Amino acid sequence: MRIALLGGTGDIGEGLALRWAYDTDHEILIGSRDPDKARAKAEEYETELDSMGRERTVKGFTNEMAADRARIVVLAVPAYYVRDTIESVADVLDEDTILVTPAVGMDRDEEGMHYKPPGVGSVTALVRKTAPDDVPVVGAFHNLAADRLANLDVDLDLDTLVVGDDGDAKGLVADIGEEIEGLRVLDAGGIANAPEVESVTPLVINIAMNNEKMHDVGVRFL
Amino acid sequence: MRIALLGGTGDIGEGLALRWAYDTDHEILIGSRDPDKARAKAEEYETELDSMGRERTVKGFTNEMAADRARIVVLAVPAYYVRDTIESVADVLDEDTILVTPAVGMDRDEEGMHYKPPGVGSVTALVRKTAPDDVPVVGAFHNLAADRLANLDVDLDLDTLVVGDDGDAKGLVADIGEEIEGLRVLDAGGIANAPEVESVTPLVINIAMNNEKMHDVGVRFL
Repeated sequence: MRIALLGGTGDIGEGLALRWAYDTDHEILIGSRDPDKARAKAEEYETELDSMGRERTVKGFTNEMAADRARIVVLAVPAYYVRDTIESVADVLDEDTILVTPAVGMDRDEEGMHYKPPGVGSVTALVRKTAPDDVPVVGAFHNLAADRLANLDVDLDLDTLVVGDDGDAKGLVADIGEEIEGLRVLDAGGIANAPEVESVTPLVINIAMNNEKMHDVGVRFL
Repeated sequence: MRIALLGGTGDIGEGLALRWAYDTDHEILIGSRDPDKARAKAEEYETELDSMGRERTVKGFTNEMAADRARIVVLAVPAYYVRDTIESVADVLDEDTILVTPAVGMDRDEEGMHYKPPGVGSVTALVRKTAPDDVPVVGAFHNLAADRLANLDVDLDLDTLVVGDDGDAKGLVADIGEEIEGLRVLDAGGIANAPEVESVTPLVINIAMNNEKMHDVGVRFL
């Protein structure tokens, strides 16, 4: 399957690209507003994978070209770029494209990180509202520390959560998530339940800030 | 140390009472609006502990009498009773009493459970606002499934989170939390960070609802 990572040059994009390229045979497409940057990063990922003994082709494109070619399109951009990014690729999305959103709206102050969803209630709901109606939307991969995800030397042994109103699309995203070694995907329900899922991201950052040796902490539900 | 569980006849109160009575030598006081109900439940807990080979005295009181006698006062009541309960015991609280709040504001609809904090931002913030200013307030023990906590046959092997603005009080609550076997207590920062902590409760309920064999699921941060 082809998986496009829009904003695939950023850290969550890098982590997902490397894990999927390393652990699966899915074709990985890196998207960026700047295709030269996407190609340069794709080459970097190839070199990294090669150094781990895994020869893979990773290709770079504009976000639109990457989205056009892919079955799964991950919006690996910060929350405040989500709307612009969807609008820039909306013409090439259709009912056969699944839009995946791992972004979370947060504010930092001196106390820590705070969940600040957009007015529609969650970033996942914002993606649902912004994307064409026939494009399935799935919230997933929010609570994975980017550094840990991108470090292929580290075993994950973590859970991540999916939310979505289209059961088939959610199931497919859960399946490709579980193909990443050490990652278990749990179903947290519909998009209405996205705020509780997205809130885990500021929480794990606060835990990392307030406890020793918990840098890059993740979560398991047991 | 004396620990009072106001609303200690309810399920989270029962779980904490049984665990502390079983795993520690702290004196456990069960509070209720109805002292007869408190005494009846306290006897029930004694019988349960006895059947597990642990002979303990557990006493029942009115909430006010229990709070008056204790160093740690746990508001083990639903979120919508928190304010009334604090007001009913405010006269006997002082700077040497630590008020602990595990309650979470939630709404259920057909999609699942949703985090609905009071207007001040969190139940912990509401407790802070309602309690006398010199009484330290700590949010803790939110995300523990009551049935699992109350079943002494089950190993917990779980994390729970504390938030609070008084470091000494928070440290003491963390210490008595860690005295419960299989429970690790992590610091999530100040009361401003309580919403992200309280949000875990509806999340684990949604996970339990949407996945097989995850009834009474808890959380570990790894």
